[in-house]
Amino acid sequence: MIPMTTEDNNDALNERHRSRMQRKKAVVDAKIAAATDVRGVLLVNTGNGKGKSSSGFGMVIRAMGHDMQVGVVQFIKGAIPTGEERFLRRFPEQCSFHVMGEGYTWETQDRTRDIEKAQAAWACARELLNDPTVGLVLLDELNIALKYHYLDEQTVLADLRARPPAQHVVITGRGAPPELIDAADTVTDMTLVKHAFSQGIQAQPGVEL
Amino acid sequence: MIPMTTEDNNDALNERHRSRMQRKKAVVDAKIAAATDVRGVLLVNTGNGKGKSSSGFGMVIRAMGHDMQVGVVQFIKGAIPTGEERFLRRFPEQCSFHVMGEGYTWETQDRTRDIEKAQAAWACARELLNDPTVGLVLLDELNIALKYHYLDEQTVLADLRARPPAQHVVITGRGAPPELIDAADTVTDMTLVKHAFSQGIQAQPGVEL
Repeated sequence: MIPMTTEDNNDALNERHRSRMQRKKAVVDAKIAAATDVRGVLLVNTGNGKGKSSSGFGMVIRAMGHDMQVGVVQFIKGAIPTGEERFLRRFPEQCSFHVMGEGYTWETQDRTRDIEKAQAAWACARELLNDPTVGLVLLDELNIALKYHYLDEQTVLADLRARPPAQHVVITGRGAPPELIDAADTVTDMTLVKHAFSQGIQAQPGVEL
Repeated sequence: MIPMTTEDNNDALNERHRSRMQRKKAVVDAKIAAATDVRGVLLVNTGNGKGKSSSGFGMVIRAMGHDMQVGVVQFIKGAIPTGEERFLRRFPEQCSFHVMGEGYTWETQDRTRDIEKAQAAWACARELLNDPTVGLVLLDELNIALKYHYLDEQTVLADLRARPPAQHVVITGRGAPPELIDAADTVTDMTLVKHAFSQGIQAQPGVEL
Protein backbone atom coordinates (compact mmCIF):
# COMPACT_ATOMS: atom_id res chain seq x y z
CA MET A 1 0.00 0.00 0.00
CA ILE A 2 1.30 3.43 -0.95
CA PRO A 3 1.39 5.71 2.13
CA MET A 4 -0.78 8.82 1.94
CA THR A 5 1.15 12.04 1.35
CA THR A 6 0.49 15.21 3.37
CA GLU A 7 -1.30 16.57 0.34
CA ASP A 8 -3.58 13.53 0.12
CA ASN A 9 -4.31 13.93 3.82
CA ASN A 10 -5.14 17.56 3.34
CA ASP A 11 -7.40 16.78 0.39
CA ALA A 12 -9.25 14.19 2.44
CA LEU A 13 -9.59 16.66 5.32
CA ASN A 14 -10.88 19.37 2.99
CA GLU A 15 -13.41 16.97 1.45
CA ARG A 16 -14.70 15.87 4.86
CA HIS A 17 -14.95 19.54 5.87
CA ARG A 18 -16.93 20.37 2.73
CA SER A 19 -19.43 17.58 3.14
CA ARG A 20 -19.87 18.36 6.86
CA MET A 21 -20.48 22.01 6.02
CA GLN A 22 -22.94 21.10 3.26
CA ARG A 23 -24.98 19.10 5.77
CA LYS A 24 -24.74 21.97 8.27
CA LYS A 25 -25.85 24.47 5.64
CA ALA A 26 -28.94 22.38 4.89
CA VAL A 27 -29.88 22.41 8.59
CA VAL A 28 -29.23 26.15 8.96
CA ASP A 29 -31.06 27.02 5.74
CA ALA A 30 -34.11 25.05 6.84
CA LYS A 31 -34.15 26.98 10.14
CA ILE A 32 -33.80 30.29 8.31
CA ALA A 33 -36.65 29.34 5.97
CA ALA A 34 -38.82 28.52 9.00
CA ALA A 35 -38.14 31.87 10.68
CA THR A 36 -40.50 34.12 8.75
CA ASP A 37 -41.95 36.24 11.52
CA VAL A 38 -40.80 39.88 11.45
CA ARG A 39 -41.61 41.93 14.53
CA GLY A 40 -40.05 43.81 17.38
CA VAL A 41 -38.29 41.45 19.76
CA LEU A 42 -37.92 41.65 23.51
CA LEU A 43 -34.43 40.67 24.68
CA VAL A 44 -33.28 40.09 28.24
CA ASN A 45 -29.62 39.94 29.32
CA THR A 46 -29.32 38.59 32.84
CA GLY A 47 -26.89 36.55 34.96
CA ASN A 48 -23.86 37.35 37.12
CA GLY A 49 -21.21 37.58 34.40
CA LYS A 50 -19.92 40.55 32.44
CA GLY A 51 -21.56 41.59 29.19
CA LYS A 52 -25.21 42.39 29.95
CA SER A 53 -25.13 46.17 29.50
CA SER A 54 -22.30 46.17 26.98
CA SER A 55 -24.28 43.77 24.77
CA GLY A 56 -27.24 46.15 25.02
CA PHE A 57 -25.02 49.02 23.91
CA GLY A 58 -23.69 46.92 21.05
CA MET A 59 -27.28 46.50 19.84
CA VAL A 60 -27.80 50.26 20.20
CA ILE A 61 -25.03 51.01 17.70
CA ARG A 62 -26.10 48.11 15.48
CA ALA A 63 -29.53 49.77 15.24
CA MET A 64 -27.93 53.19 14.73
CA GLY A 65 -25.94 51.74 11.83
CA HIS A 66 -29.30 50.96 10.21
CA ASP A 67 -30.35 54.59 10.71
CA MET A 68 -32.86 53.68 13.40
CA GLN A 69 -33.75 56.05 16.22
CA VAL A 70 -32.80 54.61 19.59
CA GLY A 71 -33.51 55.38 23.23
CA VAL A 72 -31.56 54.46 26.37
CA VAL A 73 -32.82 54.64 29.95
CA GLN A 74 -30.36 53.79 32.68
CA PHE A 75 -31.97 52.61 35.89
CA ILE A 76 -29.81 52.40 39.05
CA LYS A 77 -26.58 53.47 37.33
CA GLY A 78 -25.86 57.17 37.22
CA ALA A 79 -23.30 58.00 39.88
CA ILE A 80 -20.32 57.54 37.55
CA PRO A 81 -20.28 58.88 33.98
CA THR A 82 -19.51 55.97 31.64
CA GLY A 83 -17.76 55.74 28.30
CA GLU A 84 -20.96 54.63 26.56
CA GLU A 85 -22.80 57.68 27.89
CA ARG A 86 -20.03 60.05 26.82
CA PHE A 87 -19.95 58.43 23.40
CA LEU A 88 -23.68 58.23 22.71
CA ARG A 89 -24.35 61.79 23.85
CA ARG A 90 -22.50 62.86 20.71
CA PHE A 91 -25.58 61.84 18.69
CA PRO A 92 -28.55 63.58 20.30
CA GLU A 93 -30.48 63.55 17.03
CA GLN A 94 -30.38 59.74 16.80
CA CYS A 95 -30.03 58.54 20.39
CA SER A 96 -32.00 59.90 23.34
CA PHE A 97 -29.98 59.02 26.43
CA HIS A 98 -31.49 59.21 29.92
CA VAL A 99 -29.45 58.55 33.05
CA MET A 100 -32.10 58.16 35.72
CA GLY A 101 -30.31 56.37 38.56
CA GLU A 102 -28.07 57.60 41.31
CA GLY A 103 -25.86 54.59 41.89
CA TYR A 104 -26.03 51.04 43.14
CA THR A 105 -28.48 50.25 45.93
CA TRP A 106 -25.63 49.73 48.40
CA GLU A 107 -24.36 53.24 47.63
CA THR A 108 -27.66 55.11 47.91
CA GLN A 109 -28.90 53.06 50.93
CA ASP A 110 -32.18 54.93 50.63
CA ARG A 111 -35.10 52.80 49.53
CA THR A 112 -37.67 55.61 49.37
CA ARG A 113 -35.46 57.72 47.14
CA ASP A 114 -34.49 54.69 45.00
CA ILE A 115 -38.19 53.98 44.42
CA GLU A 116 -38.85 57.59 43.38
CA LYS A 117 -35.92 57.47 40.97
CA ALA A 118 -37.03 54.12 39.50
CA GLN A 119 -40.55 55.41 38.97
CA ALA A 120 -39.28 58.55 37.23
CA ALA A 121 -37.10 56.31 35.06
CA TRP A 122 -40.11 54.17 34.17
CA ALA A 123 -42.11 57.27 33.17
CA CYS A 124 -39.24 58.12 30.83
CA ALA A 125 -39.10 54.54 29.49
CA ARG A 126 -42.84 54.57 28.89
CA GLU A 127 -42.51 57.62 26.62
CA LEU A 128 -40.00 55.73 24.48
CA LEU A 129 -42.23 52.63 24.53
CA ASN A 130 -45.09 54.78 23.23
CA ASP A 131 -43.10 56.25 20.35
CA PRO A 132 -43.26 54.25 17.10
CA THR A 133 -40.39 56.31 15.63
CA VAL A 134 -38.04 54.72 18.18
CA GLY A 135 -36.75 51.44 16.71
CA LEU A 136 -34.84 50.12 19.72
CA VAL A 137 -35.04 50.88 23.43
CA LEU A 138 -32.39 49.84 25.94
CA LEU A 139 -33.62 49.64 29.54
CA ASP A 140 -30.31 49.22 31.33
CA GLU A 141 -30.42 47.62 34.80
CA LEU A 142 -34.21 47.52 34.80
CA ASN A 143 -34.01 44.00 36.27
CA ILE A 144 -32.50 45.43 39.46
CA ALA A 145 -35.41 47.85 39.90
CA LEU A 146 -37.79 44.91 39.44
CA LYS A 147 -35.87 42.64 41.79
CA TYR A 148 -36.11 45.18 44.62
CA HIS A 149 -39.81 45.81 43.80
CA TYR A 150 -39.09 49.46 43.08
CA LEU A 151 -41.52 49.11 40.18
CA ASP A 152 -44.74 47.19 39.76
CA GLU A 153 -43.92 44.20 37.56
CA GLN A 154 -47.42 43.97 36.04
CA THR A 155 -47.31 47.62 34.96
CA VAL A 156 -43.91 47.10 33.36
CA LEU A 157 -45.08 43.96 31.51
CA ALA A 158 -48.26 45.66 30.30
CA ASP A 159 -46.32 48.66 28.99
CA LEU A 160 -43.87 46.35 27.20
CA ARG A 161 -46.75 44.41 25.59
CA ALA A 162 -48.43 47.66 24.47
CA ARG A 163 -45.35 49.00 22.65
CA PRO A 164 -45.28 49.55 18.84
CA PRO A 165 -45.17 46.12 17.12
CA ALA A 166 -41.86 46.75 15.30
CA GLN A 167 -39.99 48.15 18.29
CA HIS A 168 -37.11 46.14 19.79
CA VAL A 169 -36.44 46.34 23.53
CA VAL A 170 -33.33 45.18 25.39
CA ILE A 171 -33.53 44.80 29.18
CA THR A 172 -30.43 44.18 31.28
CA GLY A 173 -29.48 43.42 34.87
CA ARG A 174 -28.98 40.53 37.25
CA GLY A 175 -31.93 38.55 38.52
CA ALA A 176 -34.48 39.03 35.74
CA PRO A 177 -37.88 38.01 37.17
CA PRO A 178 -39.42 34.79 35.76
CA GLU A 179 -42.44 36.57 34.27
CA LEU A 180 -40.18 38.86 32.28
CA ILE A 181 -38.22 35.84 31.02
CA ASP A 182 -41.51 34.24 29.97
CA ALA A 183 -42.51 37.40 28.08
CA ALA A 184 -39.15 37.76 26.30
CA ASP A 185 -38.27 36.39 22.85
CA THR A 186 -34.51 36.13 23.41
CA VAL A 187 -32.92 35.58 26.83
CA THR A 188 -29.23 35.18 27.58
CA ASP A 189 -27.79 34.31 30.96
CA MET A 190 -24.36 35.94 31.03
CA THR A 191 -22.75 33.24 33.14
CA LEU A 192 -19.67 34.24 35.09
CA VAL A 193 -16.72 32.00 34.31
CA LYS A 194 -14.22 34.43 35.79
CA HIS A 195 -13.83 38.17 36.27
CA ALA A 196 -10.67 40.30 36.33
CA PHE A 197 -12.02 42.16 39.38
CA SER A 198 -11.87 39.00 41.51
CA GLN A 199 -8.21 38.68 40.55
CA GLY A 200 -7.33 42.09 41.94
CA ILE A 201 -7.68 44.07 38.68
CA GLN A 202 -9.42 47.44 38.97
CA ALA A 203 -12.52 48.36 36.98
CA GLN A 204 -11.06 50.31 34.08
CA PRO A 205 -12.24 52.87 31.51
CA GLY A 206 -13.17 51.14 28.27
CA VAL A 207 -13.83 47.82 30.01
CA GLU A 208 -16.15 48.37 32.97
CA LEU A 209 -16.63 52.15 32.93
CA MET B 1 -50.96 45.92 71.39
CA ILE B 2 -51.37 48.76 68.89
CA PRO B 3 -51.38 47.39 65.31
CA MET B 4 -48.60 48.65 63.02
CA THR B 5 -49.69 51.21 60.45
CA THR B 6 -48.66 51.03 56.80
CA GLU B 7 -46.27 53.87 57.52
CA ASP B 8 -44.64 51.98 60.39
CA ASN B 9 -44.32 48.96 58.12
CA ASN B 10 -42.71 51.06 55.45
CA ASP B 11 -40.33 52.64 57.96
CA ALA B 12 -39.31 49.19 59.17
CA LEU B 13 -38.81 48.02 55.58
CA ASN B 14 -36.71 51.09 54.77
CA GLU B 15 -34.59 50.59 57.86
CA ARG B 16 -33.96 46.92 57.06
CA HIS B 17 -33.06 47.92 53.49
CA ARG B 18 -30.60 50.54 54.74
CA SER B 19 -28.82 48.21 57.12
CA ARG B 20 -28.65 45.44 54.50
CA MET B 21 -27.18 47.90 51.99
CA GLN B 22 -24.67 49.19 54.56
CA ARG B 23 -23.40 45.63 55.06
CA LYS B 24 -23.30 45.10 51.29
CA LYS B 25 -21.39 48.35 50.79
CA ALA B 26 -18.74 47.22 53.30
CA VAL B 27 -18.25 43.98 51.35
CA VAL B 28 -18.12 45.76 47.96
CA ASP B 29 -15.79 48.49 49.25
CA ALA B 30 -13.37 45.88 50.61
CA LYS B 31 -13.31 44.16 47.21
CA ILE B 32 -12.74 47.48 45.43
CA ALA B 33 -9.89 48.31 47.83
CA ALA B 34 -8.31 44.91 47.11
CA ALA B 35 -8.47 45.41 43.32
CA THR B 36 -5.47 47.66 42.81
CA ASP B 37 -3.94 46.17 39.69
CA VAL B 38 -4.28 48.39 36.59
CA ARG B 39 -3.42 46.76 33.28
CA GLY B 40 -4.84 45.71 29.97
CA VAL B 41 -7.33 42.89 30.42
CA LEU B 42 -8.08 39.97 28.14
CA LEU B 43 -11.81 39.25 27.89
CA VAL B 44 -13.46 36.24 26.28
CA ASN B 45 -17.16 36.06 25.38
CA THR B 46 -18.16 32.52 24.51
CA GLY B 47 -21.20 30.22 24.73
CA ASN B 48 -24.21 29.51 22.54
CA GLY B 49 -26.42 32.44 23.54
CA LYS B 50 -26.81 35.88 22.02
CA GLY B 51 -24.62 38.76 23.16
CA LYS B 52 -21.00 37.77 22.49
CA SER B 53 -20.22 40.14 19.61
CA SER B 54 -22.68 42.82 20.68
CA SER B 55 -21.01 42.95 24.11
CA GLY B 56 -17.66 43.36 22.34
CA PHE B 57 -19.06 46.25 20.33
CA GLY B 58 -20.48 47.80 23.50
CA MET B 59 -16.95 47.80 24.92
CA VAL B 60 -15.68 49.36 21.67
CA ILE B 61 -17.92 52.42 22.12
CA ARG B 62 -17.23 52.50 25.87
CA ALA B 63 -13.53 52.84 25.02
CA MET B 64 -14.28 55.39 22.29
CA GLY B 65 -16.20 57.44 24.86
CA HIS B 66 -12.93 57.65 26.81
CA ASP B 67 -11.18 58.92 23.65
CA MET B 68 -9.25 55.67 23.21
CA GLN B 69 -8.20 54.41 19.79
CA VAL B 70 -9.82 51.07 19.00
CA GLY B 71 -9.39 48.31 16.43
CA VAL B 72 -11.85 45.67 15.24
CA VAL B 73 -11.00 42.54 13.26
CA GLN B 74 -13.89 40.35 12.17
CA PHE B 75 -12.94 36.74 11.56
CA ILE B 76 -15.46 34.50 9.75
CA LYS B 77 -18.15 37.18 9.45
CA GLY B 78 -18.06 39.35 6.35
CA ALA B 79 -20.68 38.13 3.90
CA ILE B 80 -23.41 40.45 5.22
CA PRO B 81 -22.72 44.10 6.08
CA THR B 82 -23.83 44.68 9.68
CA GLY B 83 -25.18 47.70 11.52
CA GLU B 84 -22.12 47.86 13.76
CA GLU B 85 -19.83 47.97 10.73
CA ARG B 86 -21.89 50.67 9.04
CA PHE B 87 -21.92 52.67 12.26
CA LEU B 88 -18.27 52.34 13.24
CA ARG B 89 -16.97 53.10 9.76
CA ARG B 90 -18.19 56.65 10.38
CA PHE B 91 -15.18 57.14 12.71
CA PRO B 92 -12.11 56.07 10.73
CA GLU B 93 -9.86 58.35 12.79
CA GLN B 94 -10.75 56.57 16.04
CA CYS B 95 -11.78 53.05 15.00
CA SER B 96 -9.92 50.92 12.48
CA PHE B 97 -12.42 48.33 11.27
CA HIS B 98 -11.32 45.24 9.35
CA VAL B 99 -13.79 42.74 7.94
CA MET B 100 -11.61 39.77 7.09
CA GLY B 101 -14.06 36.87 6.80
CA GLU B 102 -16.30 35.71 4.01
CA GLY B 103 -19.14 34.15 5.92
CA TYR B 104 -19.89 31.23 8.18
CA THR B 105 -18.02 27.99 7.60
CA TRP B 106 -21.16 26.28 6.32
CA GLU B 107 -21.58 29.01 3.70
CA THR B 108 -18.01 29.07 2.38
CA GLN B 109 -17.60 25.24 2.53
CA ASP B 110 -13.98 25.77 1.52
CA ARG B 111 -11.46 24.94 4.22
CA THR B 112 -8.35 26.00 2.29
CA ARG B 113 -9.78 29.42 1.53
CA ASP B 114 -11.13 29.80 5.10
CA ILE B 115 -7.62 29.13 6.41
CA GLU B 116 -6.08 31.72 4.10
CA LYS B 117 -8.67 34.27 5.19
CA ALA B 118 -8.15 33.49 8.89
CA GLN B 119 -4.40 33.86 8.53
CA ALA B 120 -4.76 37.21 6.74
CA ALA B 121 -7.10 38.29 9.55
CA TRP B 122 -4.52 37.26 12.16
CA ALA B 123 -1.81 39.28 10.38
CA CYS B 124 -4.14 42.27 10.64
CA ALA B 125 -4.89 41.53 14.32
CA ARG B 126 -1.18 41.25 15.06
CA GLU B 127 -0.57 44.79 13.77
CA LEU B 128 -3.17 46.11 16.21
CA LEU B 129 -1.68 43.95 19.01
CA ASN B 130 1.71 45.55 18.28
CA ASP B 131 0.43 49.11 18.43
CA PRO B 132 0.53 50.72 21.89
CA THR B 133 -1.64 53.63 20.68
CA VAL B 134 -4.56 51.19 20.30
CA GLY B 135 -6.33 50.95 23.67
CA LEU B 136 -8.81 48.19 22.87
CA VAL B 137 -8.89 45.48 20.21
CA LEU B 138 -11.98 43.42 19.39
CA LEU B 139 -11.25 40.08 17.71
CA ASP B 140 -14.75 39.10 16.68
CA GLU B 141 -15.38 35.36 16.11
CA LEU B 142 -11.73 34.50 16.62
CA ASN B 143 -12.85 31.51 18.70
CA ILE B 144 -14.39 29.94 15.58
CA ALA B 145 -11.11 30.22 13.68
CA LEU B 146 -9.35 28.57 16.62
CA LYS B 147 -11.98 25.84 16.98
CA TYR B 148 -11.54 24.79 13.34
CA HIS B 149 -7.74 25.00 13.72
CA TYR B 150 -7.56 27.66 11.01
CA LEU B 151 -4.94 29.36 13.19
CA ASP B 152 -2.18 28.01 15.38
CA GLU B 153 -3.35 28.44 18.97
CA GLN B 154 0.15 28.82 20.39
CA THR B 155 0.97 31.65 17.96
CA VAL B 156 -2.26 33.43 18.89
CA LEU B 157 -1.58 33.05 22.64
CA ALA B 158 2.01 34.25 22.26
CA ASP B 159 0.93 37.34 20.28
CA LEU B 160 -1.74 38.12 22.90
CA ARG B 161 0.83 37.83 25.72
CA ALA B 162 3.27 40.09 23.86
CA ARG B 163 0.78 42.95 23.40
CA PRO B 164 1.29 46.39 25.03
CA PRO B 165 0.65 46.05 28.80
CA ALA B 166 -2.21 48.59 28.92
CA GLN B 167 -4.08 47.23 25.90
CA HIS B 168 -7.47 45.56 26.39
CA VAL B 169 -8.52 42.72 24.08
CA VAL B 170 -12.00 41.24 23.66
CA ILE B 171 -12.33 37.88 21.90
CA THR B 172 -15.70 36.48 20.90
CA GLY B 173 -17.19 33.32 19.42
CA ARG B 174 -18.56 29.95 20.43
CA GLY B 175 -16.28 27.24 21.70
CA ALA B 176 -13.38 29.25 23.14
CA PRO B 177 -10.47 26.81 23.58
CA PRO B 178 -9.52 25.95 27.21
CA GLU B 179 -6.02 27.47 26.90
CA LEU B 180 -7.49 30.81 25.86
CA ILE B 181 -9.90 30.67 28.81
CA ASP B 182 -6.92 30.01 31.09
CA ALA B 183 -5.06 32.99 29.64
CA ALA B 184 -8.04 35.39 29.95
CA ASP B 185 -8.79 37.69 32.89
CA THR B 186 -12.56 37.88 32.35
CA VAL B 187 -14.61 35.13 30.75
CA THR B 188 -18.36 35.08 30.23
CA ASP B 189 -20.34 32.15 28.91
CA MET B 190 -23.32 33.68 27.12
CA THR B 191 -25.70 30.87 28.00
CA LEU B 192 -28.71 30.44 25.75
CA VAL B 193 -31.97 30.54 27.69
CA LYS B 194 -34.03 31.13 24.55
CA HIS B 195 -33.67 32.78 21.17
CA ALA B 196 -36.28 34.51 19.00
CA PHE B 197 -34.93 32.67 15.94
CA SER B 198 -36.01 29.30 17.37
CA GLN B 199 -39.52 30.71 17.74
CA GLY B 200 -39.79 31.54 14.06
CA ILE B 201 -38.65 35.17 14.26
CA GLN B 202 -36.28 36.33 11.51
CA ALA B 203 -32.84 37.79 12.21
CA GLN B 204 -33.50 41.52 12.05
CA PRO B 205 -31.52 44.71 11.49
CA GLY B 206 -30.61 46.29 14.80
CA VAL B 207 -30.89 42.99 16.67
CA GLU B 208 -28.87 40.32 14.85
CA LEU B 209 -27.56 42.23 11.83
